[in-house]
Amino acid sequence: MATVSLVQYEDASEQVKQVFDEIKRTRNVKDVNNFWKSLANHPATLRRTWESLCEVMQPGALDALTKEMIYIAVSVANNCDYCIHSHTAAAFAKGMTQTQYQELLAVIGMASETNALATAMKVPVDTQFLADADKK
Amino acid sequence: MATVSLVQYEDASEQVKQVFDEIKRTRNVKDVNNFWKSLANHPATLRRTWESLCEVMQPGALDALTKEMIYIAVSVANNCDYCIHSHTAAAFAKGMTQTQYQELLAVIGMASETNALATAMKVPVDTQFLADADKK
Amino acid sequence: MATVSLVQYEDASEQVKQVFDEIKRTRNVKDVNNFWKSLANHPATLRRTWESLCEVMQPGALDALTKEMIYIAVSVANNCDYCIHSHTAAAFAKGMTQTQYQELLAVIGMASETNALATAMKVPVDTQFLADADKK
Amino acid sequence: MATVSLVQYEDASEQVKQVFDEIKRTRNVKDVNNFWKSLANHPATLRRTWESLCEVMQPGALDALTKEMIYIAVSVANNCDYCIHSHTAAAFAKGMTQTQYQELLAVIGMASETNALATAMKVPVDTQFLADADKK
Amino acid sequence: MATVSLVQYEDASEQVKQVFDEIKRTRNVKDVNNFWKSLANHPATLRRTWESLCEVMQPGALDALTKEMIYIAVSVANNCDYCIHSHTAAAFAKGMTQTQYQELLAVIGMASETNALATAMKVPVDTQFLADADKK
Amino acid sequence: MATVSLVQYEDASEQVKQVFDEIKRTRNVKDVNNFWKSLANHPATLRRTWESLCEVMQPGALDALTKEMIYIAVSVANNCDYCIHSHTAAAFAKGMTQTQYQELLAVIGMASETNALATAMKVPVDTQFLADADKK
Repeated sequence: MATVSLVQYEDASEQVKQVFDEIKRTRNVKDVNNFWKSLANHPATLRRTWESLCEVMQPGALDALTKEMIYIAVSVANNCDYCIHSHTAAAFAKGMTQTQYQELLAVIGMASETNALATAMKVPVDTQFLADADKK
Repeated sequence: MATVSLVQYEDASEQVKQVFDEIKRTRNVKDVNNFWKSLANHPATLRRTWESLCEVMQPGALDALTKEMIYIAVSVANNCDYCIHSHTAAAFAKGMTQTQYQELLAVIGMASETNALATAMKVPVDTQFLADADKK
Repeated sequence: MATVSLVQYEDASEQVKQVFDEIKRTRNVKDVNNFWKSLANHPATLRRTWESLCEVMQPGALDALTKEMIYIAVSVANNCDYCIHSHTAAAFAKGMTQTQYQELLAVIGMASETNALATAMKVPVDTQFLADADKK
Repeated sequence: MATVSLVQYEDASEQVKQVFDEIKRTRNVKDVNNFWKSLANHPATLRRTWESLCEVMQPGALDALTKEMIYIAVSVANNCDYCIHSHTAAAFAKGMTQTQYQELLAVIGMASETNALATAMKVPVDTQFLADADKK
Repeated sequence: MATVSLVQYEDASEQVKQVFDEIKRTRNVKDVNNFWKSLANHPATLRRTWESLCEVMQPGALDALTKEMIYIAVSVANNCDYCIHSHTAAAFAKGMTQTQYQELLAVIGMASETNALATAMKVPVDTQFLADADKK
Repeated sequence: MATVSLVQYEDASEQVKQVFDEIKRTRNVKDVNNFWKSLANHPATLRRTWESLCEVMQPGALDALTKEMIYIAVSVANNCDYCIHSHTAAAFAKGMTQTQYQELLAVIGMASETNALATAMKVPVDTQFLADADKK
C-alpha cells in the first residue's frame, strides 16, 4: 500500500488535470498509471518530473528502446519494484524482443558480479582509463 | 591500493598465462588491465569470469556498444569506481559518441530520481504492468 | 512472510518482556510493532537496538521530527520496505505535514539524481569542499 | 579523474555561460563548482538540473538547512563521494553546528543498521502503518 | 508476479531439461525452484549460472554453510527479496542454528551502521591497512 | 580527506581517552585507527559504537574470523572503502588464508550476480522457502 493517496483524475486540481491530460495525450492512454497519481499530491513535483522525463527520454542520439533498457538496468540495480515492472512493460511495448530482454538481463547480472569483485579488491584504475577524458 | 597483489604476466602460473594470452589476443592489447591481474590470484575465478564475460558481452540481439552502455548504467548505480572508468573507456573505444554518452548519463540520473520517488511512496504496481508476462 | 518467528508478549522470556514493557511505556502503545517482535529472537540484539535507538532518536540539537525525516531519507535510499512504512507513519505521528512530506520526497528524488550524475562522471571534489574540515 | 572534461567559463557556449552566470549570481560565488562544469558538457542537462535544484531546495515547509541535511543523508546512503563533500560543506555554510552534524551522522548510522535488520528478517509491515495513507 | 514466464519441466527444451535434471540430481529435489524456472527463458544464462554456482559454492577452504551465510549477507545488503528467502532456507537446511542465524543478523546490522558512518565521514584509510597487500 | 577532524589522543577529552584506552588495551595496539578518531567528535557515538561492536563481534556460535568475513561481504555490497580495507586487514590478522579470501570474493561476486537477476525478473518466492520460519 502506498504511503500517499493515489489522486484520481476526477478529484484532481486544475493544475494536476493539465499534466494528466498531457500524459494521456502523449502516451495515448485512457488513464495515467499509479506513479503519476502518487506524484499528484505535489503538483510541482508532478509537472517537473513529467517534463524532465519527456526531455530525457525523447529519442536522440540514443533511440527510445535503448533508453528504456538503460532505465531497466538502473531500476534493477536500485531495486525499485515499481520501476522494474513499469519500464520492463514499457520496453516490451516499444518493441524489445524476448532475446533482447534476456541479453539485457545477462549483462545486468554480469556487471553486478564484476562490480562487486572490483570493489572488493579495490582494483586501482589503469592509467589508460583515467587518461581518456583528455583524449576524447 | 588493492587488497590483493596484481599478478604480472612474468610471475603468473601457466594456467593464468593462458587466460592472459586469450585476453590479449581477443582484445589485441599488449597487457591485460588491472582487473584481470587482480583476479589472477584465483585462477578459477579468473577463467570463469573471463569466459562468462565473453559469452555475455558478445554481440547478439543487442550490439556490443549497447551492452557497454548498460554495463556503465549498472556500474554507476552500484557505484563501482573501477568499472565506471573501464567501461566508459570501453564504450568510447567501441564508438560511443559524446552525445550518446551525455544522453546515457541523463537517463541514469532520471531513472535514479524516479526510482527513489517510487520507492519512497511505495507506489502499487498497476495491474496492466503485472499482467505483461503472460501476454508476451 | 518473515524469516523469523514474531515473538508475542505472552510467549516471551522475562528478558524480552522487560524490553517490550519499556517500549510500550515509552511510546504509550498497547503492543510493540513487528520489528521488535522479530528482534526478540535474540534478546541481546533487542536490548541493544532499543537502547541505541532511544539514545540516537531523542531530541537534541535536532528535533524529533527532523530525525524521523532523515530516517525516512536513509530508509528510502536503502530501500527498506518495513522502515519506509514505519518511519513515514512515525513522522506523521510526530506532526509532519503533507507539504513537509512532499518536500522531503522531492529532496530525496533530487539527491538521488545528482548522486548518480556525480558518481557517473567521477567529478573531482573541489578543494574548497575538501578543506572544510580544517576550518570548522 | 573525471570521465568528462570540466568546462571552464571562458570556453563555454553562450547557453552554458547563462546558466553559470545564474549560479554565480544566486550563490554569490566567483566560479561554479566542478559538478556544474561537468554537467556543462550537456547544456540541456545543465539547465534542467540547475532549475530543478533551485525549485526543490528553496526554503518552503522545510527550511534550507533541513533540506541540506536530508541531502547529506541520501548522499551517504548512495555513497556519492562528491555529494557527501559538497553538501556537507553546504550544510555548514548554511549554519549547521558540529552537534547537529554529529546527531545527523548518528541517525544515518542507526537507520542503516535497522534497515539491514528489517530487510534481513523480512519483517511484515504492521497493519497500522499500512493504513496510514487513508487517514492522513 | 515475475516479468518472465516460469518455464515448467514439461514445456522445457532438451537443453533446459538437461540442466533441470542436473539440479534435481545434485540437490536431490523433485522440482527446481522458481529462480531456475525463470532463468530457463535463456538457456545459456541458465547453464552458465548453474555451473558457476556449483563451482563457487562447493566446499573448499570455506565450508558450505559459511558460504551460505556470506550469500545471505550480500543478499541482505543488496536487498534481494527472493535471495534472502532462498538462501536463508538453504542455510538452515545445511545446519545453521538459530543462534548462528541471530549472530549473522547482528553482524550484518552492525556492519551496515559502521559502513554508513565511515562513508559519511570519509575516514582516510590508515596506512597499515593499505600496506597489507604487500605483506601477505 | 575526512569531513571531520581526527581527534588525537593528546587532544581528547577524558571521556574519549577512556574509550581509546579500552580499544588499545583490548586490541593490543599503540594507537586507535582513524575510524575511532573520527567518531571521537561525538563521544556518545564513540562509546555506543565501540560497545556494540564488542558485543556483536565477540566469538559465539560464529567464530571471530567468520564474523569478519561476513563484515567484509556487507562492506563490499555497501561499497564502504574504509571498511573494506580495515576489515580485510582484520580478517587476515585473524588468520584468514589467501584461499579463504579468494573463495569469499567468489561468493560475494556470485551472490551479486544472482541478486541482480532475481531482482530483475521479480522471481516469486517458492512456498517452501516462505514456510520455513514456522518449521524452525
